[in-house]
Amino acid sequence: SGTEGHENYFSREYLNRMSEKRTDSPWLKAKQSSPASVYILFFNLNPLVTSGADGAGESERDFKLCKLRWGTVKELLTKPGTTVIFLGVEKQVKFASQPPVEDEDGLTAWFALNAEDNPMEDLQFPSPNCFFLKSTFPALLQLSSDEAGVIAQARSVLAWHNRYSFCPTCGSRTKIDEGGYKRTCLKEDCRSLQGIHNTCYPRVDPVVIMLVIHPDGDQCLLGRKKTFPVGMYSCLAGFIEPGEVIEEAVRREVEEESGIKVGPVQYVSSQPWPMPSSLMIGCLAVAESTDIKVDENEIEEARWFTRQQVIDVFTKNSKPAFSMAPRQAIAHQLIKHWIGVNANL
Amino acid sequence: SGTEGHENYFSREYLNRMSEKRTDSPWLKAKQSSPASVYILFFNLNPLVTSGADGAGESERDFKLCKLRWGTVKELLTKPGTTVIFLGVEKQVKFASQPPVEDEDGLTAWFALNAEDNPMEDLQFPSPNCFFLKSTFPALLQLSSDEAGVIAQARSVLAWHNRYSFCPTCGSRTKIDEGGYKRTCLKEDCRSLQGIHNTCYPRVDPVVIMLVIHPDGDQCLLGRKKTFPVGMYSCLAGFIEPGEVIEEAVRREVEEESGIKVGPVQYVSSQPWPMPSSLMIGCLAVAESTDIKVDENEIEEARWFTRQQVIDVFTKNSKPAFSMAPRQAIAHQLIKHWIGVNANL
Ligand SMILES: Nc1ncnc2c1ncn2[C@@H]1O[C@H](COP(=O)(O)O)[C@@H](O)[C@H]1O
Ligand SMILES: Nc1ncnc2c1ncn2[C@@H]1O[C@H](COP(=O)(O)O)[C@@H](O)[C@H]1O
Ligand SMILES: [Mg+2]
Ligand SMILES: [Mg+2]
Ligand SMILES: [Mg+2]
Ligand SMILES: [Mg+2]
Ligand SMILES: [Mg+2]
Ligand SMILES: [Mg+2]
Ligand SMILES: [Zn+2]
Ligand SMILES: [Zn+2]
Repeated sequence: SGTEGHENYFSREYLNRMSEKRTDSPWLKAKQSSPASVYILFFNLNPLVTSGADGAGESERDFKLCKLRWGTVKELLTKPGTTVIFLGVEKQVKFASQPPVEDEDGLTAWFALNAEDNPMEDLQFPSPNCFFLKSTFPALLQLSSDEAGVIAQARSVLAWHNRYSFCPTCGSRTKIDEGGYKRTCLKEDCRSLQGIHNTCYPRVDPVVIMLVIHPDGDQCLLGRKKTFPVGMYSCLAGFIEPGEVIEEAVRREVEEESGIKVGPVQYVSSQPWPMPSSLMIGCLAVAESTDIKVDENEIEEARWFTRQQVIDVFTKNSKPAFSMAPRQAIAHQLIKHWIGVNANL
Repeated sequence: SGTEGHENYFSREYLNRMSEKRTDSPWLKAKQSSPASVYILFFNLNPLVTSGADGAGESERDFKLCKLRWGTVKELLTKPGTTVIFLGVEKQVKFASQPPVEDEDGLTAWFALNAEDNPMEDLQFPSPNCFFLKSTFPALLQLSSDEAGVIAQARSVLAWHNRYSFCPTCGSRTKIDEGGYKRTCLKEDCRSLQGIHNTCYPRVDPVVIMLVIHPDGDQCLLGRKKTFPVGMYSCLAGFIEPGEVIEEAVRREVEEESGIKVGPVQYVSSQPWPMPSSLMIGCLAVAESTDIKVDENEIEEARWFTRQQVIDVFTKNSKPAFSMAPRQAIAHQLIKHWIGVNANL
């Protein structure tokens, strides 16, 4: 039902977005230069991280975001190629390792910066063990849950600024507004300035991703793209089109990619995917046909795998029939969810 | 569960989109000039309709799309201000009243046109009882289910062309491709031409819309915007932000707009909303607090209504406590769904 249970990677809200502060320029300005505020830095959308291998805790926390202070980035903030966005304020809970440095209002604000040119020389203090993590799949999957959620928000919004700096309605330049959550056209008589239009707001692309269950209830359909590592199979997925509901997008994409007809569809959970800004909507879907005919433009192969084959992959029993997407991918969680569902849908 | 049950207005797929034909230019070209093909026409995104009050069937079918033929629109197709998109082909079932005129391949293709200047004088044959329906809420809610689905797709894609004719990455002009499902930048060295980017594809904005249930299970939270008709209350709603999952967007928007804290969230169903191109994701949400504090920028008032008050509105018993969004709105269906749910969530 999506109500309880598993939290997907990229989906934890470590910060309170406090959207009402986006239009409060004096507050934003004060927070920007507050010594308590936290800056995370991107260069070409790759976040500045440090190796988290200091023996502490979670083994999956391979990289940690470098948290910079205003004193370190103030020079960089004045560069024309720098984009700054407001992310939110820390909720009550702090990272245990960091004694809180709080502002008078008790709120620790977070900002994200993206620089177009290598920003390292503009930093006021050197960050010796820090480097820019190539933020493509799968490198970006090696953060803690808290930081993955922050990255999901920051990278999506920064990628939007990176690709949408001109007004789609008239082609003019635009300026950044509302803490980075709006772009306003600079052409005075542009249509985008009359009324409210999505051209001014960050884009989120809804995508359906689905595990298709065989009519016998005991097999599932997985496919592979040419670009996948050898032996890896995963769920089918595709962009929701204009004028489509979730369930119809599932049926259309499955039929397009595999030739399989789908009946009932059940929403399970969703996941932000900030490459650049998708919302993955994860579903189980029941097949009404079984003959596979793949769309070779998109899929190299699609196959039915038995429940036992899937269990074997999870439990690392015997020689596995295939390899799985990493646990940080919603596909992995959907497949795991199905294994846990005893009855048919 | 979203699996079965009610079909929301705007969500019926009367056509098979046949996305594989979008890149098949010879096929598209042949279909465009085929006498069997159907054209629907928009002027400034308002569809050409005729009054359906010919006594036939469904009382709610107040307006019918005017279905034009190639012979009628061929002049209009040559005008620079005309946008044409491919919608798909008719599925097996035909409108009973229209004897099928089929092509050799048996497929009846549909196209949608949008004209920037009044196209009536460019039509080859007059359409005496036709007029352009102002396509804003609630006028657009008066179509049959089949035609509402076609309009949802057509109007969303046409609205995208209308607002996104310049490349957001470099500000240059773009051209229409793939039957209207892509725009390609005309600047040769534009970054948007390297790799695949969402700047080239139609935009769909995911929105959460939710009925919040009181912790006592017997009341629900409804709000009204200043722009609503007197006495009307409806579900809260808001755009999903970058880096957010559905459930978190529900919690954030409810807290922003009403001050109410939400716990469990359950997806119910979704609805395309082509004004201009939203995907409404309908959920039930359980409140964990009860004191209302509205965000007056967005909401004029929010109130708890009892289940009995809601039932009275549906059954038109006694004097109703409020008035409801029309049945074509997913808000109406969510509220109805809750009334049908006997147990608490
Ligand atoms: N918002 C979008 N971003 C990227 N590609 C898109 C988008 N919408 C449609 N596409 C197209 O969809 C293809 C991927 O197919 P699928 O994910 O199965 O829908 C891409 O190669 C694009 O041609
Ligand atoms: N894609 C979008 N289209 C229109 N308005 C948006 C969009 N994203 C954010 N907004 C803002 O969201 C406000 C509506 O609030 P809500 O629907 O509650 O999120 C609008 O007035 C805009 O300021
Ligand atoms: Mg796909
Ligand atoms: Mg697709
Ligand atoms: Mg596809
Ligand atoms: Mg709202
Ligand atoms: Mg909002
Ligand atoms: Mg809101
Ligand atoms: Zn403009
Ligand atoms: Zn361009």
